[in-house]
Amino acid sequence: MEEKRSGIITLSTDFGLADPYVGVMKGVILSIYPQARLVDLTHALSHQRLLEAAFILHSAYAYFPPGTVHLTVVDPGVGGNRRLIVVQDPQGFWVGPDNGVLTLVIKNRPSAKVYRLTQRTYFLPEISSTFHGRDIMAPAAAHLCRGTPAAALGEPIDDPHLLEFPEPRSFPDRIIGQVLWVDHFGNLITNIAGEMIARKASSGRPWVKIGELTLPGIHSTYSEVPPQEKVALIGSSGYLEIALNQGRAADLLGFHPDRKMTVTVLFGSEPATFDF
Amino acid sequence: MEEKRSGIITLSTDFGLADPYVGVMKGVILSIYPQARLVDLTHALSHQRLLEAAFILHSAYAYFPPGTVHLTVVDPGVGGNRRLIVVQDPQGFWVGPDNGVLTLVIKNRPSAKVYRLTQRTYFLPEISSTFHGRDIMAPAAAHLCRGTPAAALGEPIDDPHLLEFPEPRSFPDRIIGQVLWVDHFGNLITNIAGEMIARKASSGRPWVKIGELTLPGIHSTYSEVPPQEKVALIGSSGYLEIALNQGRAADLLGFHPDRKMTVTVLFGSEPATFDF
Amino acid sequence: MEEKRSGIITLSTDFGLADPYVGVMKGVILSIYPQARLVDLTHALSHQRLLEAAFILHSAYAYFPPGTVHLTVVDPGVGGNRRLIVVQDPQGFWVGPDNGVLTLVIKNRPSAKVYRLTQRTYFLPEISSTFHGRDIMAPAAAHLCRGTPAAALGEPIDDPHLLEFPEPRSFPDRIIGQVLWVDHFGNLITNIAGEMIARKASSGRPWVKIGELTLPGIHSTYSEVPPQEKVALIGSSGYLEIALNQGRAADLLGFHPDRKMTVTVLFGSEPATFDF
Repeated sequence: MEEKRSGIITLSTDFGLADPYVGVMKGVILSIYPQARLVDLTHALSHQRLLEAAFILHSAYAYFPPGTVHLTVVDPGVGGNRRLIVVQDPQGFWVGPDNGVLTLVIKNRPSAKVYRLTQRTYFLPEISSTFHGRDIMAPAAAHLCRGTPAAALGEPIDDPHLLEFPEPRSFPDRIIGQVLWVDHFGNLITNIAGEMIARKASSGRPWVKIGELTLPGIHSTYSEVPPQEKVALIGSSGYLEIALNQGRAADLLGFHPDRKMTVTVLFGSEPATFDF
Repeated sequence: MEEKRSGIITLSTDFGLADPYVGVMKGVILSIYPQARLVDLTHALSHQRLLEAAFILHSAYAYFPPGTVHLTVVDPGVGGNRRLIVVQDPQGFWVGPDNGVLTLVIKNRPSAKVYRLTQRTYFLPEISSTFHGRDIMAPAAAHLCRGTPAAALGEPIDDPHLLEFPEPRSFPDRIIGQVLWVDHFGNLITNIAGEMIARKASSGRPWVKIGELTLPGIHSTYSEVPPQEKVALIGSSGYLEIALNQGRAADLLGFHPDRKMTVTVLFGSEPATFDF
Repeated sequence: MEEKRSGIITLSTDFGLADPYVGVMKGVILSIYPQARLVDLTHALSHQRLLEAAFILHSAYAYFPPGTVHLTVVDPGVGGNRRLIVVQDPQGFWVGPDNGVLTLVIKNRPSAKVYRLTQRTYFLPEISSTFHGRDIMAPAAAHLCRGTPAAALGEPIDDPHLLEFPEPRSFPDRIIGQVLWVDHFGNLITNIAGEMIARKASSGRPWVKIGELTLPGIHSTYSEVPPQEKVALIGSSGYLEIALNQGRAADLLGFHPDRKMTVTVLFGSEPATFDF
């Protein structure tokens, strides 16, 4: 299978932006492939919230040209026995640790091949025990971007580590899901895809319940409700989102990343409290 | 009129850097025009402080080559009836929502033409209701950068939305203005241009009053006063600035972005308190 | 001596990312040399912690191709009588204020030449008193990257300002150093190079003491100890580091950047408390 190249490498890490670590990885990449075009996706991932990281990566790649290399370094197990992998299909390449952060990419791209990075020719000459993002993954991304076939970097594997992803449950009159991610605007983004709700459109008007709150209908956009008013809508990634027009829903609803927050969509006439 | 192109697109948003939204816009741009050179200006604008955002944008563009495209996404009205516009003149192109964030660009570039973005050919094929930065504005910026004339993107308009910008008031013996923006160093940047003060130079020595504070003279640079000492000077953007040498004037003076802070420049002999 | 060029300019400042100052410097660079490839190293340096800044710069440059220009703007003395310099050797170019922030670069590259920036041809036409990063240093970096020889930018000097860098002290049975920098992960990075410890390997097993804590041995990687457990290791920059596996050692140990924190490595049998 021919592999396209876009010349772009995206970078997603849990490094933050205060330290020079992201810049150092870029130096390594440009030393190997000076023509690479580098795009930061996020450096605020958390190794303690791999599901969230997996969802964020999954929500972004479709907006890049085919053949883009997506480098993801969230690697608390560095130096241990976790594997490093590259996932490859016609849409692109994903390089990262085999700790589940690529779960949604792998699940949603059934034709993708997965390789374990083993070919030391494509590593830096010296490998530290604590920064494989710099010493192994950034070089792999640079070589892929330059045209090295994924298969040249290592051995195919068929058992990548997949996280148990919380799938929303569908019942005749409702869908039960949960909040996966809160963005910069305080919007609560759930695992309930807009299509899933659309498929139940004949079951009646949807009502969205989250915590103590019941919201009527799914709106199209924030400004359909007055400022500071709550609104349920299908967000820009295609998932149900609870927002506050010009405000922060996450603060209003007391969201905490360590606590699971259930979201129910009920279809039909206005629900009484006991319906949920 | 021939339109130059520099190949550069600057990005200014209120997205922050934790989420992948900025990266996604870059993916959209590079999908349309892979040669675009992308420069982040700021992603810390606030939709609640559009005047400040307008001032920041205005202070920066002159340092980019002519024909640069400046993409500004501060768009709380997304999906509502606000328009999206492109402002064009020989210095460059500005793409953004028609909510006033481009007020100072438009006011200071009288020959600029303004177009409403209407040509769907230049949008992404699918338009969400919540992320027109990605679906309409980023594609417009990419097409402009690639060479599409501004006029091809939509209809000319002559009534762009302009914010009422707080102009400093000039009196024979004084200028009264206000703080517009506090930067990372805690410097208070006002709407009083250095040239405005210079034109009154013959009226005597300037004294600057802000809150309870009276500062003698306009200095050239921070280090003309001892560390931790207050100083009034003309900042790098050409506006009167109140600073603390190696410290944060904003903290010392209890600045709060939601509260208007008046600054008076009085010319002549040392003012008594009642002079202000 | 022929000077190589990589076409890359790295940027390190204390500007933060909220303001447009970094973007403005990039606009200046691209106006002079549109082909420059720009890489942000960090914008979270502190002018109050120049030693730390010097160390961070020193730890990063080796990962960039030879002939890279490293632009460093931490310049509280702007407009005063501090000099601006460029350091040049086959590995690259460093542009910055002569306030000691380049101390470790100069000390570790004995063949480097240092020039004071004096040639106004290479400055912006108008020089402010408060932003020489934009008006002098960014233009110098752009001209160097484009191929202008370092010597053309100014006069050679042989007395660059060097900070007194805290060297670790070596005794027959121990090394005494200190914490230089805390990274995003809360890892405490010291001035004790891994090689210095390796040279004493024959003196017995190393024990690391920091504050009240004694850690047995130098490990290879974080995950050799259980989660939330303390570990001493040689970090990715080659220096002794005290970390907490999947946690923040800096918080646990009450590190404060303004307080010197001593680290002792003792070689031999398990030390009693009084050994330190």
